[in-house]
Amino acid sequence: MTTSLKLFKIGGAIIDDAEQLQQFLREFAGIVGPKILFHGGGRGANDLLKALGREPQMVNGRRITDAATLEVVTMFYAGKINKQIVAQLQWLGVNALGLSGADGNAILASKRPVGAIDYGFVGDVAEGGVNVSLLNTLLQAGLTPVFCAITHDGKGQLLNTNADTIASTMARALAPHYDVELHFCFEKDGVLLDVHDASSVIPTITAAHYAELKSAGIIAAGMLPKLDNAFAALAAGVQRVIIENALKINQPIKTILCQR
Amino acid sequence: MTTSLKLFKIGGAIIDDAEQLQQFLREFAGIVGPKILFHGGGRGANDLLKALGREPQMVNGRRITDAATLEVVTMFYAGKINKQIVAQLQWLGVNALGLSGADGNAILASKRPVGAIDYGFVGDVAEGGVNVSLLNTLLQAGLTPVFCAITHDGKGQLLNTNADTIASTMARALAPHYDVELHFCFEKDGVLLDVHDASSVIPTITAAHYAELKSAGIIAAGMLPKLDNAFAALAAGVQRVIIENALKINQPIKTILCQR
Repeated sequence: MTTSLKLFKIGGAIIDDAEQLQQFLREFAGIVGPKILFHGGGRGANDLLKALGREPQMVNGRRITDAATLEVVTMFYAGKINKQIVAQLQWLGVNALGLSGADGNAILASKRPVGAIDYGFVGDVAEGGVNVSLLNTLLQAGLTPVFCAITHDGKGQLLNTNADTIASTMARALAPHYDVELHFCFEKDGVLLDVHDASSVIPTITAAHYAELKSAGIIAAGMLPKLDNAFAALAAGVQRVIIENALKINQPIKTILCQR
Repeated sequence: MTTSLKLFKIGGAIIDDAEQLQQFLREFAGIVGPKILFHGGGRGANDLLKALGREPQMVNGRRITDAATLEVVTMFYAGKINKQIVAQLQWLGVNALGLSGADGNAILASKRPVGAIDYGFVGDVAEGGVNVSLLNTLLQAGLTPVFCAITHDGKGQLLNTNADTIASTMARALAPHYDVELHFCFEKDGVLLDVHDASSVIPTITAAHYAELKSAGIIAAGMLPKLDNAFAALAAGVQRVIIENALKINQPIKTILCQR
């Protein structure tokens, strides 16, 4: 029997609210079995940039990361947020261990080539860039890896990488070795049939069902990239992708995405 | 035969100078066998505090760490310095993995009780506070742990802890399991017989010899706490303590301290 492994990704909104973050971490501590947590950065990184006299630059929701910005986001993600989460999880009885992609060469990325936009020190995870052997070692030792959204290029350069991408890339890389469940946790209860009705959560969506919903224009535009990404992970062997409320991960209400 | 394990501690001066740090890391990469690196923070933490409008407060060379200062030093030590060192070591072929004491519950500390001075969120490593089993797991996996000077209390609180103390406490805790060599790397070539003559390095000092040097007033005042600390580690089972130049760790010039 393949060991089950649960990956959870939390976004900025939950990280910005200390009370909600703690509530999520309590819920996360209650999840049984091997698990991995991925976190973004939240608005705090922008506040820190501004406090240091730098104006955050975003294009299409992605951060333009010059050398000084990289230093600040590395401090904020890998230092402040990551260590706070790890310390709190330790307190909650989870043997958490915080990592960037540089640590143990966990995630190798390459600097995004300069196209129409120069994103600066932004990394795309390299093909085969997930260090499965390191993750096996940590998980077998009973540790819970906690990843921030910083990777490296193997040549001494840290890179800023989207946390959603890190989570789904790692889910795919681990799928041949574990029965992988990938959880995207956010502020809604799941994928909504009606974006104006918070209770209209769709319990299950298969790949065929998703194609129908998309062509019927039912999926909200903002959800499309997340769901496209999720179904790509499912096609690549991830068992289930779950879209759920970060504060209700132990409750039945959620959207389960599966291949068929 | 007991496995040999080498612990290296580098201080602030080397961290403040990017070129020297890289030179040290190249030397460190050349050290064969299992090894652990400990780093302090350097002046940069003070610069960051000032940039954020906070005046660093030091008493007897120790930092008064209020909540806001703790946040900044955690970002600086665990985020910036630690991840830069890890990324550079990865580039140099060392499978480095950065840790604070909270990660994997590596180092459990307790907040220093308020006496004549309230040091704030400063931690003293707890008795039995070193997680030897975690270190065994990491070392056996061929990883090189890189520790910053942040610990935790197991109740969700991060704490600022002296890097020299962390290094020597860990050396003692690992001494029953490994043949431990503890290296304190700084800007001089070793312990000097004449503080004004940089070439007067004492090659070897035994505990008995140290007592003589001390009573003769030969050891410079600044070196006394470091050496007292070193001989305490030797008395507790550490094989050798070495005081050496951070840029010359692979050269024969150094001071070797041993019990007899």
